[in-house]
Order: sequence, then structure tokens, then C-alpha cells
Amino acid sequence: MAGNEVKLIGHWASPFALRVRWALKLKGIEYEYIEEDLRKKSPLLLQYNPVHKKVPVLIHDGKPLAESLMILEYIDETWKQSPLFPQDPFERAMQRFWAKFADEKCAMAMLATFHQVGEEQERAAKEAQEHLKTLESVLEGKHFFGGETIGFVDIAAAWIGCWARIVEEIVGIKLIDEEKVPLLNAWFQDVLEVPIIKECVPPRDKLLVHYMSFHKMLMGSST
Amino acid sequence: MAGNEVKLIGHWASPFALRVRWALKLKGIEYEYIEEDLRKKSPLLLQYNPVHKKVPVLIHDGKPLAESLMILEYIDETWKQSPLFPQDPFERAMQRFWAKFADEKCAMAMLATFHQVGEEQERAAKEAQEHLKTLESVLEGKHFFGGETIGFVDIAAAWIGCWARIVEEIVGIKLIDEEKVPLLNAWFQDVLEVPIIKECVPPRDKLLVHYMSFHKMLMGSST
Repeated sequence: MAGNEVKLIGHWASPFALRVRWALKLKGIEYEYIEEDLRKKSPLLLQYNPVHKKVPVLIHDGKPLAESLMILEYIDETWKQSPLFPQDPFERAMQRFWAKFADEKCAMAMLATFHQVGEEQERAAKEAQEHLKTLESVLEGKHFFGGETIGFVDIAAAWIGCWARIVEEIVGIKLIDEEKVPLLNAWFQDVLEVPIIKECVPPRDKLLVHYMSFHKMLMGSST
Repeated sequence: MAGNEVKLIGHWASPFALRVRWALKLKGIEYEYIEEDLRKKSPLLLQYNPVHKKVPVLIHDGKPLAESLMILEYIDETWKQSPLFPQDPFERAMQRFWAKFADEKCAMAMLATFHQVGEEQERAAKEAQEHLKTLESVLEGKHFFGGETIGFVDIAAAWIGCWARIVEEIVGIKLIDEEKVPLLNAWFQDVLEVPIIKECVPPRDKLLVHYMSFHKMLMGSST
């Protein structure tokens, strides 16, 4: 049986730490949250994630785990209540496939929109929109990516919904257009209203200020 | 129970297809191998992997799966003999962590060594060597990454051993130095001698000609 000492090293604005908080909340797992100062990384973070030196790190009974999607798999294998994954191996593979797609294609193109300018920014925005359209295709006939309840892809990709609105406001480009991706747009609205999701999301204004300052720094360093 | 119709769309020089062939071989699964012409992608590939249009694709009873590490997880969940993963969730997470590290850090830096020149190439080679040193630390006290027998990380990372020798010969930079990474060097030698691994590896000379031509193309396009 799984022991009880669970700690999470995170940062309030990290979407990757947010995922882990959502999964722990969904499973009803009590944990100690440790906020990390990313400008001055703590000895604890460096001790528990010496390879990447990044948040989130989940520490379960003294054993540290890094990489948010892998932490989600660990949580699901360790605490069986409210499963994130279906039982069927093919359906499990599909959940992994789309979570990776959301990270590596959708989020990466959105990130490029955030730190590029001019034609490259336009190209990145177009790419992000195309990838989001592809991601939407998975939602046909479903309420959530997990079906009737939220699952791995919902937990993995919900942050894109918050973050897209922030990026749109800062760079002035529409990324999630409800006319082009109506199902995905409705999913973002619904998933972000699920109580265990909603109660962990940082306040929009605080996120906006944080990312505006980050954007300013990126733009300053690119000139 | 898993059905019997297994097909693999691959390319003889693709390390990602090679991983899947190793896993199928290890499990003793009969399959039909379909060689893809990557210069003129087949309707079959486009039908079964419309998102990435890449090999490998595993088709099991008509259902297609892409992304080689996810295919390995699917194979291990579907056919239980000769498990790639241990049972313990923490040990499973560690196997996933190091397979991802080998792909995203070691292999990516080696790839940069292959397509960069001058200072950038030197920096990439140094980075590759550092990442390989980190990967080596996992082998302390073990014969294979899987322990006494080969497991997920062995199947995922063994190709780096073949490929490093090819890259070293083409770019003239030592990547795996047996004095700096003796355990990793011994592991590459041992794992590539495991019969089910060895019998699927393409002939070295054929790989060298293939990658020399690829390198020439990359260098031509970068000037």
C-alpha cells in the first residue's frame, strides 16, 4: 500500500505543477505544498531534481519524481481511486498520445507565438491554431477527453485554456477561436469549471501580471 | 485477450522503428513488417498516422499506434511475457524518466553534433558527453538498466550505441569515450550483443553509407 507522506515542490504560475495539483485533488490525496523561488532555487529542489532542476517534483515517502506527465502516471498507478486512465491498453495509449501532442505541438506553437515577433509569430499562431483543431477532433462525441468524466488528457491539457487567454491578451492574436474550434472552446470552458480544477487555478489578473513581466523580459532579451 | 494480427510500418534505418522491432522480438510476437519509403510516403502510413506521418506505426487488429515509446508501453501492457517494466510504480516512473532523458537530452545533443559545425558542434558534443555521463550514473551496480535482464530503458536507448559510432565516424568527434563513461560503454557493448537486439540491427556499413548521405544533404542545405 502507498504510504502517506506526500510533498509537492511547485511554483504558483507553473502549469506543470498545476497539473499535479489537479491530479492530487481529484484523487483526494493530502499533501504538503512547497512553493519554490525559481529565481533562487532551493537546496531541496536541487537535491530532489538534480537532473532538470525544475518544478514540479513530487516526493512520496522520501522518493522524488520529476516530469509532470510521468508524475501523473505515477499518481494513477499508486492511488487507484478516480482513475485518470482507462483500463484498455489501446485507449491508454491514445490518452498518452494526445497529452504528448498537446504539450509538444499545441503548447510549443503557442509558446513560440509568445516569444516571437512579426512573420515568425504569425506562422507560430497559425500552427498553434491548426494543432488545436487537430486536438479538437478527439473530442467528437465526448464531453471530456476522458469521456463523461475528466481523465489524463483533461488534467494534462486544461492549463492551455487558461494560458491561451493570457497569451492572446499579451500578444493580441486570437489562438482559440470559438467559431473555428467550437468543441475545444466549450471543453476549455467546461473543464475549467470542474470544481477540483477551478479551485487550484491562480487568479487571472495575477497570472496576467506575471506573464506580462515575463514577456517584457523575453522581448528585451531578443533585441 | 490480445488478437493476433500485428503489423509494423517501419524504415530499416529508423532507430525508433528498431526499438519496436526489439520489443516485439523480446516478447516473441509474430508480425508483418512493412518497409516504408520515406521519400514517398505511402497511403497506408498517411492513413494510419495522419497526425505525424512518421514511422514507426504498430497496427494491432486494425488499430494504429504511433510514437515509439508509447508503442513500447502498449506492447508491454498487451503482451505480459518478458515484461519491459517492473511492477513497482516508482521503478516504472524511473524507467520512463530515463528513457525520456536518453531521447530528449542525449540523442538531441548527439543530433546537434551531427548537423552543426564549428563552435556550436563542439558545444553540442560537450553537452552530449555530459548527458551520457548522467545517464551512466543509473547503471551503477547494474548490468542492464532493467537490472539482470533488459527492460524499457535498454530497449529505448540501445540504438544510441550503434548510432554514436556512426556519428563519431562522420563528424570526427568522440562521443562515447570508454575512459569517461566506462559503465555506459560496457553496457552499449553488452546490450548490442543480446541476441534479440543484435539480429535486428542493420549492417554497420549500410548505416554508415545512409547517414553519410544524410549528413551531406544537411551540410549542403546549411550553406
